[in-house]
Amino acid sequence: MRASRFFISTLKEAPSEAEIVSHKLMMRAGMIKRLGSGIYTYMPMGLRVIRKVEAIVREEMNRAGAIELLMPVVQPAELWQETGRWDKMGPELMRVKDRHGRDFAIQPTSEEVVTDVVRTEIKSYRQLPVNFYHIQTKFRDERRPRFGLMRGREFTMKDAYSFDRDAEGLQRSYQVMFDAYVNIFTRFGLQFRAVAADNGAIGGSGSHEFHVIADTGEDALVYCPNSDYAANMEAAEAVAPAVPRAAAAQPMTKTPTPGKARCEDVAKLLGVPLTQTVKSLVLMVEKEEDGKVTKQAWLLLLRGDHELNEVKAAKVPGLANFRFASEAEIVEWFGTPPGYLGPIGTKKPISVVADRTVAAMSDFICGANEVDFHLTGVNWGRDLPEPAVFDLRNVVEGDASPDGKGALAIQRGIEVGHVFQLGTRYSEDMKATFLDENGKPQLLQMGCYGIGITRILGAAIEQNFDERGIIWPASLAPFEIVLCPMGYDRNEAVRAEADRLYGELTAAGIDVILDDRGERPGVMFADWELIGVPHRIVIGDRGLKEGKLEYQGRRDTEATAVAMGDAVAFVKAKLAA
Amino acid sequence: MRASRFFISTLKEAPSEAEIVSHKLMMRAGMIKRLGSGIYTYMPMGLRVIRKVEAIVREEMNRAGAIELLMPVVQPAELWQETGRWDKMGPELMRVKDRHGRDFAIQPTSEEVVTDVVRTEIKSYRQLPVNFYHIQTKFRDERRPRFGLMRGREFTMKDAYSFDRDAEGLQRSYQVMFDAYVNIFTRFGLQFRAVAADNGAIGGSGSHEFHVIADTGEDALVYCPNSDYAANMEAAEAVAPAVPRAAAAQPMTKTPTPGKARCEDVAKLLGVPLTQTVKSLVLMVEKEEDGKVTKQAWLLLLRGDHELNEVKAAKVPGLANFRFASEAEIVEWFGTPPGYLGPIGTKKPISVVADRTVAAMSDFICGANEVDFHLTGVNWGRDLPEPAVFDLRNVVEGDASPDGKGALAIQRGIEVGHVFQLGTRYSEDMKATFLDENGKPQLLQMGCYGIGITRILGAAIEQNFDERGIIWPASLAPFEIVLCPMGYDRNEAVRAEADRLYGELTAAGIDVILDDRGERPGVMFADWELIGVPHRIVIGDRGLKEGKLEYQGRRDTEATAVAMGDAVAFVKAKLAA
Repeated sequence: MRASRFFISTLKEAPSEAEIVSHKLMMRAGMIKRLGSGIYTYMPMGLRVIRKVEAIVREEMNRAGAIELLMPVVQPAELWQETGRWDKMGPELMRVKDRHGRDFAIQPTSEEVVTDVVRTEIKSYRQLPVNFYHIQTKFRDERRPRFGLMRGREFTMKDAYSFDRDAEGLQRSYQVMFDAYVNIFTRFGLQFRAVAADNGAIGGSGSHEFHVIADTGEDALVYCPNSDYAANMEAAEAVAPAVPRAAAAQPMTKTPTPGKARCEDVAKLLGVPLTQTVKSLVLMVEKEEDGKVTKQAWLLLLRGDHELNEVKAAKVPGLANFRFASEAEIVEWFGTPPGYLGPIGTKKPISVVADRTVAAMSDFICGANEVDFHLTGVNWGRDLPEPAVFDLRNVVEGDASPDGKGALAIQRGIEVGHVFQLGTRYSEDMKATFLDENGKPQLLQMGCYGIGITRILGAAIEQNFDERGIIWPASLAPFEIVLCPMGYDRNEAVRAEADRLYGELTAAGIDVILDDRGERPGVMFADWELIGVPHRIVIGDRGLKEGKLEYQGRRDTEATAVAMGDAVAFVKAKLAA
Repeated sequence: MRASRFFISTLKEAPSEAEIVSHKLMMRAGMIKRLGSGIYTYMPMGLRVIRKVEAIVREEMNRAGAIELLMPVVQPAELWQETGRWDKMGPELMRVKDRHGRDFAIQPTSEEVVTDVVRTEIKSYRQLPVNFYHIQTKFRDERRPRFGLMRGREFTMKDAYSFDRDAEGLQRSYQVMFDAYVNIFTRFGLQFRAVAADNGAIGGSGSHEFHVIADTGEDALVYCPNSDYAANMEAAEAVAPAVPRAAAAQPMTKTPTPGKARCEDVAKLLGVPLTQTVKSLVLMVEKEEDGKVTKQAWLLLLRGDHELNEVKAAKVPGLANFRFASEAEIVEWFGTPPGYLGPIGTKKPISVVADRTVAAMSDFICGANEVDFHLTGVNWGRDLPEPAVFDLRNVVEGDASPDGKGALAIQRGIEVGHVFQLGTRYSEDMKATFLDENGKPQLLQMGCYGIGITRILGAAIEQNFDERGIIWPASLAPFEIVLCPMGYDRNEAVRAEADRLYGELTAAGIDVILDDRGERPGVMFADWELIGVPHRIVIGDRGLKEGKLEYQGRRDTEATAVAMGDAVAFVKAKLAA
């Protein structure tokens, strides 16, 4: 490509709406242009990157045996009603009526449509397994679209859907997709991590997220540096302490702690470590029986320095639909306002659940259910009954890995892919069956597999940038290499060499752009460093007289001289590196 | 591709909803699947064809210097309001509200968005000309979606938009696109014709439609076999007869024609050719002046065998907003109900406009404005004043070509492309300007250029099919060639040769599918003939013993024996033909 035939539009300053670095740099590099809140035009420079992402995804999906089709953007409401998602999904699902008043959804995803395709097309076990995917425009009416392509409303997603005859088949299809995702993210040239994820309400037996590692990532990824254990924060298990509970050594004592409602303040006042304190969280569960609503208070106990994991809390039997208690409810059950709560001496009976760590504590400190007082030296079994014990907390750096292979570490990530075993969640609702060997209808076992195509751009930049701009991995860069001739418009020798090299690189199948705009070197260099092309060759009059060109990689601090005759081989070697 | 890794789903019978052959064959060949009225999933087999269409379009657009970007499907109403199209477009424009109640359009086309991009990105004449295009999902809420992909609601379109500094520049950009379209349709391997089109209300100086020739086409294309004159029916000029008007030979006579209201019946009754009769069409124009609406009746006169061209009628000064008169209005102006109307002796004064052919007639027959009576021997200048003369009619086969190079012929076509000089229609409304050499803002001159990507599939099939199925041109076929091994699942020699040939053809870059399903020959042949793969090689045990394969082109009536060793060269030669 010649720059004069392309559209290059860079900005010195990012628009004020851009909050994070990838958004700023994409705006400045002229890759995207805002059309409305969370809606962007992909400008020519950005579209080239999107196409490279798509091509890699498509190749690896095809290699893995998935078959591409294309499902519509505008989808009849009837299908969404069959699965109940028409009602369950809130305003995030964009809804539209046609001229006849019929309801349609602008697709945020395509489980319903693909299941409809499959329930009519797949008749026999002989046609299984099958995996259909498409790369299509999606719309999610986010409450707060932001961060450019990271949380847009209109975006491009690759979504694949596998169908199998049984759970074992689903497990195999899932593994094939998992492996394909590893290949895809490896080919992107990005640092990434696959982490086990919570299956949520959908159930099923497996789910992993693929994250691009970036300090600015919204998600915390938990992993063991010595093993392949990895999970997101919601799913990472906090194991029980290895050391058994110590014997009680102190008597239980009501201790004045005036004005010290927080564990940190109590520990400081009493001169004990924070890890000796226990904090109390009150949840409410409402039940309807015979038309009468009854409420029950639950007390969750966590060590003073730990944080509640709400996904884990919801898995405690009886707590599926919990909410946090109001102050009035706390007074009703504990006889005291929040601040000095504890499991001993409540006004009304409560259900107590202790985190695994708390269950292993002895001589601990908790609220006395009386303002300005705590209890110290509290011990399970002696001062109060043994509690129900569950994993309730977020893991922290240094926790033991659940596989017993070392201590957990935490890093930040940006979710760009998700693989999910859906099981029969959709095939049941939509009666998607096949006939088995005995001619008996069986429900299809389904998996779904998404990659946020446009989000990849934001994530790649969050991981790869410096003060001068973006640093694309070669596989995603809008161009693999840029030729910057100094004085293309006025120096014949420079122009001739630039054209010659451009011709040779193009013929070698290298995605090269020749900056023939005749801009000053400073402008050229700044533009291409901002845009993030990973390799650059400068063609200057002085160098040419010595038969030399200048090569500089985007991360290099200095240029390297390259003999004119060696340039193509040199570039090939750099690209292969 | 191996058939066992692909998704093939053919039907013996087309669903009853399919009305035309392309729709029926696409459904039967498993290329599309109906999701809702005018909304289709493109199944894997159909998507392959779409991708081939897209690839050719993209290559030729890029070669012509157009630059690809991607504009959103969901577009803010504000831009559509700037050009007035939010109000002007009827229910065909799909409208949707987001969670905050803001209005959006589901794009049917992108003039507004691209003009918004350009008005902020293009600052100087130095950046011109520029041509942006995208290939994107469109939605038009057609009143009567039908004919499969021919008149769908959701479809894929390539739309390009050129911006120039002046009308001459626009003319050049337009010609570049016109030439690119000729290249595109030539590469498709389809018979097509570019015809001049009417510019409609948009004005501007040029517009052409590209039609795929097909007997089943909805549009009539007018062309001169001896020259390059071609226009659609709306735009084709009917020139005045070359022979001047003959002198009057008959007296004007009121002649009884009881019960003969139609020209055909009058001609038959009186024993004269239909070309001696004149038919009367009454139009009304309403004008509002000082809050008062006044109506005026117009009488349009056409030769008895000719048809009104409404586009031409609307171009007669004063008739821009005509409608047809009601029976009550006819009685009010002519003193008689429709059936025996004519220009002589009306009740109230009327404006008379004669078609060029009628103006050259003498001794003609027209209604007498009295039930059951016509006037014969009517002559201009003698019996009534010379009329205003305009081209009002559709041309007919045999009419003189406007370029004087012979007689016009008519064929049917399917519109698949349109190039259009918009001028400043959008740049005025949206204040899209650039600074000229003198630093003065000037309006951008705009052109737009569309190709109905998915419609191409329907049009190609309407042109190329037989009783066995589709016959794709090689450039559009889902696969260029199919290998049909007889007994792939059980004959080792057949399997070995099929795999060998498949490997060689694949290595040669040929898009080949190997039917390794192990189906019976009859099923294989019927499937691939229905799907329309243009070349087929059969690998059979008997042939192999003689070192021979069987080749048959989709249009061939018989197979040709090919020596095993020559097969790849043979196929290459066939594909290059």
